[in-house]
Amino acid sequence: MGKELNPQTNGFHHHLNGDGPPLPGGDLPDLLVLRPGLLYKVFEQEFLAKFNVLKAFESPLPLDKYLLRHAQAARAILCEAIVTRITADLLLQLPALELVVADGTGVNHIDLAACRRRGIAVTNTGDVFSEDTADYGVGLLIGVMRRLTRADAFVRRGAWPAAGEFPLGLKLRGKRVGIVGLGNIGTKLAKRLEAFGCKVSYNSRTKKQSARYDFHPTVVDLASHSDILIVCCSLTEKTRHLINDGVLSALGKSGILVNIGRGPIVDEKTLVSYLVEGKIAGAAMDVYENEPNVPSELFGLDNVVLSPHRGAFTEEAFGDALKIVMGNLDAFFSNSTLITPVSTNE
Amino acid sequence: MGKELNPQTNGFHHHLNGDGPPLPGGDLPDLLVLRPGLLYKVFEQEFLAKFNVLKAFESPLPLDKYLLRHAQAARAILCEAIVTRITADLLLQLPALELVVADGTGVNHIDLAACRRRGIAVTNTGDVFSEDTADYGVGLLIGVMRRLTRADAFVRRGAWPAAGEFPLGLKLRGKRVGIVGLGNIGTKLAKRLEAFGCKVSYNSRTKKQSARYDFHPTVVDLASHSDILIVCCSLTEKTRHLINDGVLSALGKSGILVNIGRGPIVDEKTLVSYLVEGKIAGAAMDVYENEPNVPSELFGLDNVVLSPHRGAFTEEAFGDALKIVMGNLDAFFSNSTLITPVSTNE
Repeated sequence: MGKELNPQTNGFHHHLNGDGPPLPGGDLPDLLVLRPGLLYKVFEQEFLAKFNVLKAFESPLPLDKYLLRHAQAARAILCEAIVTRITADLLLQLPALELVVADGTGVNHIDLAACRRRGIAVTNTGDVFSEDTADYGVGLLIGVMRRLTRADAFVRRGAWPAAGEFPLGLKLRGKRVGIVGLGNIGTKLAKRLEAFGCKVSYNSRTKKQSARYDFHPTVVDLASHSDILIVCCSLTEKTRHLINDGVLSALGKSGILVNIGRGPIVDEKTLVSYLVEGKIAGAAMDVYENEPNVPSELFGLDNVVLSPHRGAFTEEAFGDALKIVMGNLDAFFSNSTLITPVSTNE
Repeated sequence: MGKELNPQTNGFHHHLNGDGPPLPGGDLPDLLVLRPGLLYKVFEQEFLAKFNVLKAFESPLPLDKYLLRHAQAARAILCEAIVTRITADLLLQLPALELVVADGTGVNHIDLAACRRRGIAVTNTGDVFSEDTADYGVGLLIGVMRRLTRADAFVRRGAWPAAGEFPLGLKLRGKRVGIVGLGNIGTKLAKRLEAFGCKVSYNSRTKKQSARYDFHPTVVDLASHSDILIVCCSLTEKTRHLINDGVLSALGKSGILVNIGRGPIVDEKTLVSYLVEGKIAGAAMDVYENEPNVPSELFGLDNVVLSPHRGAFTEEAFGDALKIVMGNLDAFFSNSTLITPVSTNE
């Protein structure tokens, strides 16, 4: 997707690189895309229909040269959440930039302070991914506790008739689940887990008056009172490596860690050693410190579930996200109020 | 497990085969085991401590000869649920039999009519597996909708860095889920699915007055009003191949089937052709018509989750099941009331 251009979009592309005469559509507003995220790839035609997409990723030029030549007037950038980083240095190369549109919820890849200093607005996709991410958290938890992904591999390799019994799993009901970060996702996750008979408690920056779950003032305290720890906070400088040796040690030998937040919230090297040495019982991860690279020590372990950052990724949520991205861009280019602005004051 | 005998249990075994002098423990009641199920394997020591276990599975004799020589006085049999069948023919070879103790919930492997005619009581493990089976149903559903087992395989084979994006999944929220069989498991499953924002309706032998979900009088009607069909009824002659061509056709091209009931409830050959030909969107199965054999046409499909009959299998549920099995045996041998008798009038 997004690599093969049809003749119509080729026309835009030709024009947008400034190498040919203006074509119909030349009065569409510029939208800079450094690297196509999945949202862009899935909906490229929709973006091309409404914007002159400046496809930095298709240019043979080095990025700085590309930006100097083609993006000096770009007022808006669409950025995907996994690899592209919106740094202060990058912003220096985009003197006309006024809007950063993230294609997901997390904005840890964007230097918000630098945006604030420049008066650049930032939008995310609001809450559209939180239901699906909460669902996925439950899927990962059942996956690791009931060994579901390993069971599927066991059947597919034809091992069942010969090997006979596949190992027993662990029961969800009655387990103490500690939620790290009781925001949109954490709250939805807690509601689901209650239906399974899990006992939910949480840690968050502050105690939530509206939550009826037990609050623990530190993550170590939460971990020491939990059978399962589920990370669903956002990544900030305060949460980087929040899940460290002390937390994993408090979680203990029979504990299970699930991460649906961001990879760097967990000290991955320490987690790998805890798993390899059997110092916790298992883990299920959707996110990693250095995506798309996953520590290869994990590949052979039966007590882990490894997912390629798919927590939020359903067809339906992508449709909803597109509406919000387009809504923010429409609002910006028509001088209306952005629908899901992110505070840059943190 | 269960194959290597330690000296102590060897003593029992020697005695039980009737080839040596009586040993201490010889006054323990006989318990016949044709083939060890997982419950027996996990808890063999507990059984050996309370019973003279007649291990037909360890004898070099053909079963009929073994039974004739060693089991004519056996009043109780423990039977596992997957392979052993308690047929009228088998009962003819066990003239003293008064109790069949199943190690699980389902009793479709037991000829209940033949037991009734002989006045043989049957027990199962009651409701101890229904929570875990309902959990597993959700795990299978998220597994197939969010492609979780394939995602895990994708990461483990190191494909993420090179392949880039893994396909999008499907959202649970708002989906219409039809539950086939609103019994213990179906009811618990419905409660969980509501927490995910699914719209639950059901088919059952009769409309349940206590259920607030929409009732559909036939499975075809249920399927035609469902995005997802989850089979969790028991297997009887009436439910054999209940999920047939008509039902799958009504479920349709975007429909998903989950089976946590019993394999033969689904016409497996037809299901495989629907999956291979893309006439339904996906399936997740814990059970199969001819376990442990799974149709190999399914092994290469990305839109299926294949599990080796693990729905009920957690360490905690096995502990609970052991208590019930032992409770029934204790009750029987002390002439008390069985704790989880199964009606043999069906």
